[in-house]
Amino acid sequence: MANYLVRCRQCGKIFGKEYKLFKCSCGGVLEVLIDIMNSKWSVGKDAEGIFRYSSLLPDLPQQISLGEGKTPILAKSSDGLTFYFKLEYLNPTGSFKDRGSAIAVSKAVELGVSEVLEDSSGNTGISISAYAARAGIKARIYVPSDIPLGKYLLIKSFGAEVVRAGTRDEASRKVLSDLSDEGYYIGHTWNPYFIEGTKTFAYEVYEVLKSVDYVITPVASGTLLLGVWKGFNELVELGLTSSTPKLVGVQACGYDSLNNYLSNVITTECVEPTSLADAIRLTNAPRLPYIADAIRRSEGFLAVVNDELIIKALKELYGMGLAVEPTSAAAYAAFKLVRKELSGKVLIPLTGSGLKYVGGVESPLYKVFVSGPN
Amino acid sequence: MANYLVRCRQCGKIFGKEYKLFKCSCGGVLEVLIDIMNSKWSVGKDAEGIFRYSSLLPDLPQQISLGEGKTPILAKSSDGLTFYFKLEYLNPTGSFKDRGSAIAVSKAVELGVSEVLEDSSGNTGISISAYAARAGIKARIYVPSDIPLGKYLLIKSFGAEVVRAGTRDEASRKVLSDLSDEGYYIGHTWNPYFIEGTKTFAYEVYEVLKSVDYVITPVASGTLLLGVWKGFNELVELGLTSSTPKLVGVQACGYDSLNNYLSNVITTECVEPTSLADAIRLTNAPRLPYIADAIRRSEGFLAVVNDELIIKALKELYGMGLAVEPTSAAAYAAFKLVRKELSGKVLIPLTGSGLKYVGGVESPLYKVFVSGPN
Repeated sequence: MANYLVRCRQCGKIFGKEYKLFKCSCGGVLEVLIDIMNSKWSVGKDAEGIFRYSSLLPDLPQQISLGEGKTPILAKSSDGLTFYFKLEYLNPTGSFKDRGSAIAVSKAVELGVSEVLEDSSGNTGISISAYAARAGIKARIYVPSDIPLGKYLLIKSFGAEVVRAGTRDEASRKVLSDLSDEGYYIGHTWNPYFIEGTKTFAYEVYEVLKSVDYVITPVASGTLLLGVWKGFNELVELGLTSSTPKLVGVQACGYDSLNNYLSNVITTECVEPTSLADAIRLTNAPRLPYIADAIRRSEGFLAVVNDELIIKALKELYGMGLAVEPTSAAAYAAFKLVRKELSGKVLIPLTGSGLKYVGGVESPLYKVFVSGPN
Repeated sequence: MANYLVRCRQCGKIFGKEYKLFKCSCGGVLEVLIDIMNSKWSVGKDAEGIFRYSSLLPDLPQQISLGEGKTPILAKSSDGLTFYFKLEYLNPTGSFKDRGSAIAVSKAVELGVSEVLEDSSGNTGISISAYAARAGIKARIYVPSDIPLGKYLLIKSFGAEVVRAGTRDEASRKVLSDLSDEGYYIGHTWNPYFIEGTKTFAYEVYEVLKSVDYVITPVASGTLLLGVWKGFNELVELGLTSSTPKLVGVQACGYDSLNNYLSNVITTECVEPTSLADAIRLTNAPRLPYIADAIRRSEGFLAVVNDELIIKALKELYGMGLAVEPTSAAAYAAFKLVRKELSGKVLIPLTGSGLKYVGGVESPLYKVFVSGPN
């Protein structure tokens, strides 16, 4: 496993592996720096889940895995453009978040904490709950009050405590104000180890496709986009690939927080805030400037979609047999919106499972596929 | 891809690849015989899903895949016994059925049919609907009237027509009486190509673990158990492994149809029929005698579990971070019931996803984890 240290992105201060707080003393976001120069690419055959890449992951005494990663890549083509879906919704708890939880919870185990606290629109809460259960530590999850019933139920099923806390943004604030000395805040919006897990997405793309020209990814707290960026940059540093893909960040109407940071934006008409893309309804993500920076440096851009486009995309995806959540459809909607700008190999991660949405008449799937107008 | 023919298990009659009926003229169940002698083991790198094993699969002009297979295997140990979970619920539509649908729907495409008909407790209906959508053909699915809402909703979302038909057994009868000349009955309880997909489960186990001593699998129509049996027998024929595992069939109270065929049975006390293991509530599976034969020849046995054991097992599995459906918990419950009989390497497929059950207050998960007694 790789040597590493923790650094503040704001003031540059360096911390050791034992540092337990979720942010720098200056208030800045932390990042993990892997000693790439003394590491090498190697894929373990017997390791579980993403720990097969442990030569490039932080050195951790215990590996908490549920078999995450190795998600299928399906090739499609239309009008002369080849594009790929990576089915991240087939991760153990139904979203790409499992990559991040594997590393973040393994770190929590190393730190010896007995309880982890997390704020989440649902997917990360489910994921952290499952990995905490696997590790035998308690989890307390702060969620928006209107969390889809299925997501709520899954968190409860993994044995976590659930705190309903108003909007998604309010959940972010409440978890921090409730934090005591004993609790460990594992929140993915801040936790630097989480990104160490999501970067394995890039490693897997490299293993199968070698390189891609564009990655189109939904953005709320930016853990997937920043992981993709970090992973591909490490591959360049290792000399395995010569270039990084252009990143297209996807946000939905009413929650296009990156708009304040970027000038390169393609947006559809926004009349109402999204009610469908519930996994990206966050406006105060601590890493926003760094997400914008990654998009800019990759020569990518921001795409903003509305619910009308999301519904269309959702129907098309199910028509291809892909059971995704509405937020994943936002990425495909963005792809369709901006496709004139694209060339080469385009990769679209389908981030979350539609299976969590099959609840009652209040389910978005129910509204789109059963009771809604055609 | 391998050469093959179709044979009746009852009268031995041989049919060519173009044979379109789901059973023999004598009423017997059909099976696909692969020309193993002229085939060899080889794993394709660029193929999608289970088609990486196409050297041992029926020769098919089009491969309809959603990235099925390559599911994680997690090792566990307790009291000196090592056992393994294979997370079949992480297949594209949330169950092992996707392996079967990939081959069966690819065959339907070759036969040029425009609509496939299927009867199902839910999982196969979801799976066939998704693969039919992927292939661009229509699907009509016959389900029991009390199908969990989530499963119903998913079938609808993939664009299939849903027919509610009383009990699971009644759905089996109704689909056949509704069958016209244009419709193609793809029902997994009969379809021989379906087993060609599920046998890839054995190939994957061989790739990772080489051999196992026991496989503990839920049985309704027997497609997984028979696939496991066929796959391991082909590996023996190919000279890759020397023995086949012992098969432990798992059924639930009230639906222990194999009890009439087997003498080697371990059963818990049955007071009421299961209300939880909805995926194995079938009593008239056409392949019952062949399932019993496979269990007998493997030197395995039948285990029968009740809802009390299933609830306990379900709680334990979620406590390990594994989001399965109650029927998968039946397999783990059986493992716990019979573990004194077991030795060596034991494999437990976790067959279906709990994510399909996260509906409203009528969900089994809701009853076990939220409103139920502790």
